[in-house]
Amino acid sequence: MRAEKTDVLKRLSYIEGHLKGIRKMVDEDKYCVDILRQTYAVRMAIEKLEAIILENHLHTCVPEAITNGRAEEVIDELVQLYSLAANR
Amino acid sequence: MRAEKTDVLKRLSYIEGHLKGIRKMVDEDKYCVDILRQTYAVRMAIEKLEAIILENHLHTCVPEAITNGRAEEVIDELVQLYSLAANR
Amino acid sequence: MRAEKTDVLKRLSYIEGHLKGIRKMVDEDKYCVDILRQTYAVRMAIEKLEAIILENHLHTCVPEAITNGRAEEVIDELVQLYSLAANR
Amino acid sequence: MRAEKTDVLKRLSYIEGHLKGIRKMVDEDKYCVDILRQTYAVRMAIEKLEAIILENHLHTCVPEAITNGRAEEVIDELVQLYSLAANR
Repeated sequence: MRAEKTDVLKRLSYIEGHLKGIRKMVDEDKYCVDILRQTYAVRMAIEKLEAIILENHLHTCVPEAITNGRAEEVIDELVQLYSLAANR
Repeated sequence: MRAEKTDVLKRLSYIEGHLKGIRKMVDEDKYCVDILRQTYAVRMAIEKLEAIILENHLHTCVPEAITNGRAEEVIDELVQLYSLAANR
Repeated sequence: MRAEKTDVLKRLSYIEGHLKGIRKMVDEDKYCVDILRQTYAVRMAIEKLEAIILENHLHTCVPEAITNGRAEEVIDELVQLYSLAANR
Repeated sequence: MRAEKTDVLKRLSYIEGHLKGIRKMVDEDKYCVDILRQTYAVRMAIEKLEAIILENHLHTCVPEAITNGRAEEVIDELVQLYSLAANR
């Protein structure tokens, strides 16, 4: 958990830095195609981050909630998360 | 173009602020599901931004390049962009 | 479950029919853009179908597996499904 | 073009066969997770097909339209296609 939190925080800082770079590119009127290449990279980095957080959620919070009789609640949340992710 | 650049810069600032908020949530050990809801919102905001930049590219740089005899070049770029966006 | 199975089967038949129509369009050299509009519609129909099957899985098989002491197994499957869906 | 049309038709037949197999799985009440693995595979096959058709469109119809003074028209179509693909 500890190692994972550090990893997630590092990834978030990296993404923020990347976005600042993109803002600079837009500000300096860089070529749209080069800007889009960077936004795609940011999007992939966020998707990777989400995969890490979701996997952690499934392996820690979900079993814990089930043990404590809150299975239905976490399952409803998963249904909702999936539809959020898919409707993006 | 001017109005559009201002819009894109405003959206980028907003996304950076949103990410900072997510970093705070991770730092304070907020519930994973609440964090994921926020990362999905960020991802959608980036996708919206990309749509705006691409539409602008198609309406301005592409016709300009075609007029200047660089049709093949911009078309190769579009093929490449599409495969980048799809393979994310 | 019964009503849901009927719905899923009906959706699958519809998608197959739609694809046959697309094959006909390709065969008759219809305009690429019109063909792509149809393939996007098919893709959306498949995504809707997946959402229905996943929601059903989360509401029926998952709680059942948990009750029968197979929580870890279904959770590993969900992690795997998510990465399959995301890496598409 | 000829070779490409044959390839696209072959892929469409393959996808239809795959879907028929999925319908059989649903009909025989196979495990949801196994069904979802197959629908993801179909979705990836359709995305691959779309990439082939779009690349062909960009390399053939688009330059042809530009030569014939219909640049604006094909560009409007590309903007529309992109938003269709992204909003799925």
